[in-house]
Amino acid sequence: MAHPGDLSALAGLIAAGTIRAGDVRAVIGKTEGNGGLNDFTRGFFTQSLMLLLARHTGEAPEALAARIPCVLSGGTEGALSPHYMVFAVARDRGGASGLALGSAFSPPTQAGEIGRVAQIEAVSAAVRAAMADAGIARAEDVALVQVKAPCALAPGPEARSGDPRMLMALSRAAAAFGAGIAIGDIAPEAGTEAALLRDVQHFSSRVSISSGIEVTCNEVVVIGRAAGWTPGITAGVAPMRDLLDLDGVIAACRAAGLEASPAVADRSRVLGVIAKGEPDKAGHIRGARHTMLGDTDIDAQRHLRGALGAIVAAVTGDGQVFVSGGAEHQGPPGGGLVCIFARE
Amino acid sequence: MAHPGDLSALAGLIAAGTIRAGDVRAVIGKTEGNGGLNDFTRGFFTQSLMLLLARHTGEAPEALAARIPCVLSGGTEGALSPHYMVFAVARDRGGASGLALGSAFSPPTQAGEIGRVAQIEAVSAAVRAAMADAGIARAEDVALVQVKAPCALAPGPEARSGDPRMLMALSRAAAAFGAGIAIGDIAPEAGTEAALLRDVQHFSSRVSISSGIEVTCNEVVVIGRAAGWTPGITAGVAPMRDLLDLDGVIAACRAAGLEASPAVADRSRVLGVIAKGEPDKAGHIRGARHTMLGDTDIDAQRHLRGALGAIVAAVTGDGQVFVSGGAEHQGPPGGGLVCIFARE
Amino acid sequence: MAHPGDLSALAGLIAAGTIRAGDVRAVIGKTEGNGGLNDFTRGFFTQSLMLLLARHTGEAPEALAARIPCVLSGGTEGALSPHYMVFAVARDRGGASGLALGSAFSPPTQAGEIGRVAQIEAVSAAVRAAMADAGIARAEDVALVQVKAPCALAPGPEARSGDPRMLMALSRAAAAFGAGIAIGDIAPEAGTEAALLRDVQHFSSRVSISSGIEVTCNEVVVIGRAAGWTPGITAGVAPMRDLLDLDGVIAACRAAGLEASPAVADRSRVLGVIAKGEPDKAGHIRGARHTMLGDTDIDAQRHLRGALGAIVAAVTGDGQVFVSGGAEHQGPPGGGLVCIFARE
Amino acid sequence: MAHPGDLSALAGLIAAGTIRAGDVRAVIGKTEGNGGLNDFTRGFFTQSLMLLLARHTGEAPEALAARIPCVLSGGTEGALSPHYMVFAVARDRGGASGLALGSAFSPPTQAGEIGRVAQIEAVSAAVRAAMADAGIARAEDVALVQVKAPCALAPGPEARSGDPRMLMALSRAAAAFGAGIAIGDIAPEAGTEAALLRDVQHFSSRVSISSGIEVTCNEVVVIGRAAGWTPGITAGVAPMRDLLDLDGVIAACRAAGLEASPAVADRSRVLGVIAKGEPDKAGHIRGARHTMLGDTDIDAQRHLRGALGAIVAAVTGDGQVFVSGGAEHQGPPGGGLVCIFARE
Repeated sequence: MAHPGDLSALAGLIAAGTIRAGDVRAVIGKTEGNGGLNDFTRGFFTQSLMLLLARHTGEAPEALAARIPCVLSGGTEGALSPHYMVFAVARDRGGASGLALGSAFSPPTQAGEIGRVAQIEAVSAAVRAAMADAGIARAEDVALVQVKAPCALAPGPEARSGDPRMLMALSRAAAAFGAGIAIGDIAPEAGTEAALLRDVQHFSSRVSISSGIEVTCNEVVVIGRAAGWTPGITAGVAPMRDLLDLDGVIAACRAAGLEASPAVADRSRVLGVIAKGEPDKAGHIRGARHTMLGDTDIDAQRHLRGALGAIVAAVTGDGQVFVSGGAEHQGPPGGGLVCIFARE
Repeated sequence: MAHPGDLSALAGLIAAGTIRAGDVRAVIGKTEGNGGLNDFTRGFFTQSLMLLLARHTGEAPEALAARIPCVLSGGTEGALSPHYMVFAVARDRGGASGLALGSAFSPPTQAGEIGRVAQIEAVSAAVRAAMADAGIARAEDVALVQVKAPCALAPGPEARSGDPRMLMALSRAAAAFGAGIAIGDIAPEAGTEAALLRDVQHFSSRVSISSGIEVTCNEVVVIGRAAGWTPGITAGVAPMRDLLDLDGVIAACRAAGLEASPAVADRSRVLGVIAKGEPDKAGHIRGARHTMLGDTDIDAQRHLRGALGAIVAAVTGDGQVFVSGGAEHQGPPGGGLVCIFARE
Repeated sequence: MAHPGDLSALAGLIAAGTIRAGDVRAVIGKTEGNGGLNDFTRGFFTQSLMLLLARHTGEAPEALAARIPCVLSGGTEGALSPHYMVFAVARDRGGASGLALGSAFSPPTQAGEIGRVAQIEAVSAAVRAAMADAGIARAEDVALVQVKAPCALAPGPEARSGDPRMLMALSRAAAAFGAGIAIGDIAPEAGTEAALLRDVQHFSSRVSISSGIEVTCNEVVVIGRAAGWTPGITAGVAPMRDLLDLDGVIAACRAAGLEASPAVADRSRVLGVIAKGEPDKAGHIRGARHTMLGDTDIDAQRHLRGALGAIVAAVTGDGQVFVSGGAEHQGPPGGGLVCIFARE
Repeated sequence: MAHPGDLSALAGLIAAGTIRAGDVRAVIGKTEGNGGLNDFTRGFFTQSLMLLLARHTGEAPEALAARIPCVLSGGTEGALSPHYMVFAVARDRGGASGLALGSAFSPPTQAGEIGRVAQIEAVSAAVRAAMADAGIARAEDVALVQVKAPCALAPGPEARSGDPRMLMALSRAAAAFGAGIAIGDIAPEAGTEAALLRDVQHFSSRVSISSGIEVTCNEVVVIGRAAGWTPGITAGVAPMRDLLDLDGVIAACRAAGLEASPAVADRSRVLGVIAKGEPDKAGHIRGARHTMLGDTDIDAQRHLRGALGAIVAAVTGDGQVFVSGGAEHQGPPGGGLVCIFARE
């Protein structure tokens, strides 16, 4: 991408017949904004993407946006590089077993449901629906659940918090619990309202959540292994214990079948990389004070993405890493997770 | 360090008799400012350090500042942690051979000499004097040359550039050439005025330069192996080919005698880490566009330090890494260097 | 505007029949980005605007962008408010004399012409063409010349500077000279290549220039008084001697026929406000040191806009002020200019 | 000030005998940091100030810091200029009536008292003590109460909030209520715990509060008119209704006896300027949306100071304005206050 409105690479693939516009099922991308409330690079990209697809499918941009999850994270700090991953599902696919993708949308979420048991349950149901859509039979076959969770810009008295940033964190936490319960990483009885953001021992290292005020329901994409899908692509996931957990990154590569010692030997096999993490809330990493949380000049999430992205990119050999903060209940506290898509 | 004026750790070591204030020969540290022109954490630290040493030695703070190089880099982005390394040389030292330290100051530098052959030669001479001070006999025994190079806040017509930031870069480049020539990494005839900042194929991976408007001459610290010094500490240096060169970081660890596969096995043996690097000037890392150079919100050096520091810290297992930008002719272009001090 | 892609206000006016999409001749607006090289809110707005107009006129967005100057400045620091001014010219207009608008585009500009006499002359010619387009007979009847001047992202050896930011400043300077000469504020013989950015005594307080890498020729809008235009709107312009020149702001209001003592008495008559300014390059305002030019955390232009915008807004009583930095030869050095559009 | 550690101007006045170091009773200053949690320019200035005074008085720096309130605000955005005001009280003063200064410190504040009625009452008592110290007999003779209020970096369960930033706001609010009650601007019965930050209709336009984690009790300075003080200096205070309230700034000037139409006619009579303000919490100023509260790149207080400072400086003709955010219950909500010290 030359800029956040530059879809020329996808346009070229569509023009060449490599991808059919109608086959696009989800997009996950990283734009070069600040990643915060006032990051408009996400909206610019989404508008440009939907215009491109609309031109080729004949559908209205609004209709496309309502059925194609477009998960964007702003912020390409340090070694990171703006990019997007297009998940397209060919209609004539087939095979014994391969990497499968399914999606589902919960009913519209009321502001009063965000960060409450209602949202946990709605996300669990949507994850199960997405698994069914993909044909993934067993929870252990799920590689990654990606959720876009809703928020409210001006939360009213019915909301659990009047602060949009806190409500966003609660929404991510509830979605992480919902997804974690659906795939068996979190015990169902742990999913209480009080547990959100507090019981950090409950987490899943296979769920990645983003939330935004422009989202009005829980949009779920599930990726995993299922029968009837074309072989050739695999996904590997591993937790990161803390921000410096190089072994965790390498473990994710190996889980995706890649040789890494420590850098990935064959970069051309890497198709996409997703990482979640957070600045350690106690303010220390392995006993050394970090300064991410108290910096008035650079947002803590920008610090985090620059550091986490560089470590992951040093292993995969490429700055095109989808790195996102806000890792509540997504991987170990103070750590996070890495997911690698690779050619087999 | 709890803050840039917090010298309590050193005060404790002096009070306990572990370090004698009079033995302190150099300090290299990282403070939590923005690392730019308006970073006053460096001045705050220096004032606090010299007050502490003055209290114990009886010397005036100004006299101490004139004989003890205090090299500070602002900016602890991402995983980095504020810290300082104190280099003290005991008077009763002795031994067959060990890590040695020497220092030297060039005569006061005129603004018109900065970034010119006069500075290259002055630094070369100072490096040779510092080697002699340390008793380092051979250029190949030098592990690292650290230079504080001068600049001018309001350069006049005699200066090579009227822009203080450009003059700082020229000063670093001239000092890198001077040091690189003195230790045999750069051919003497390559050291012309025109070569500075232009002939990027000339570099040394054993020199680390900082420049500042508060510096009035070339202050040189040389660290290497020499006879007559107590054994027990070693230094390893390696170049980084680019920002993602994980193998380069590991090579530096191994050069310091540390097992690293990929993370350092015994973190307690790591005494100090220095890294230099720069955002690739062509705007790409291994073919992927980075956004460090065109960001109006975050300075390119802050991006660089967050990324480089995280990669080095992931290997050494500790955010206490002295990471500094401005790596002109210090390591390969677009890359840099890593130096590790370790217990043997 | 709720965000940089929000054109709902203009869509409403078009839907209500208040404005005909085909009558839109120019748009000048302020979006909430950082105002720097990586500000994509301008592109997002432009894409959204042209989509809206395309839907109503049937023209392609690209064709609309090629004939409707859309001058955007990013950055709504402090009291500033995101907004846009739409200049529409009704086909059935008429009257004795009123505020007129004309536009013109120079031929495509080569990179080697930027910041050189060729650009000065091209802008002068375009300003004269735009005056003719508007029917403005005399130079003294021009209220304001607004120019979008070209730049090059990767200037080659033929360019006057290889640094895109410097080339942007040179482009603004050349355009200011060209426009100033065309309207008689600058003597033609002063317009030499060497004078640009250097001879600060040459300026016009009636020209406002922006430059950008996305611009490929000099796009000129001239506003002034001419026969045959509907009366009812007026424009007032005044220079600001320095950043704190409150009297200059008030003078512009009075020149637009508004009572201001010091705040404008009838805010409802204010239709639009344009201000240009720059941080004093000597680093002082009336003898007091400012810190805008050496701040690593906040770009100098963001400092400038926040301060200048607040002063103008305090007089006009409204944060919807188009404030733009880069005021080379546009108003007195260290100062700038203010232009107010008002109902008579 | 050339930098935050530059006390050379005061040193010169002491050396010249103009000020006696022992007469210094309070310092209020503005340093060029970011004004946030990680702004160390305040500590650097304080260390440098106390060293200077210690050298001349023979007292220990710590003892001086414990008896001389040093109120600093970081952030010189836009037109603002780093500076400090020294309040010295000559021992041989005398006269019929003049501007008086008194100070008082509350007992050490427990974390559990911050933002509670205990703090309100402690501040009220300290204000009364400071009035007595100054000899100010009537509440209406108080021009300004300046308070440094305590906070806790790691608030425990006894604290009203575990978030240090929220606790700082609560501390400022409680101190504003305490001071406002003591000088009769707020009814005593309004001062409940629940009212803090909520009942915005209660405020005083004569109190200015800062809070910080380095402060351990409520430090109060009261300035006003009293018998027995040398005439010649006066203070004027006025509220600002909102951020653009130019008339409020002018009113403060006139209250200090200055002619202002709108800029102050005789700048040489202005001795010092203090302004407090806050970004409107509803996100609008006179109906126009501002973007200060949702900006990830620039802190809201930095936006605010740049805008407010420029408006005040445009009237007083000088960027040396002490502008501080965090104006809870200090002036009207969304607005603030201005206080001008001037020669009569």
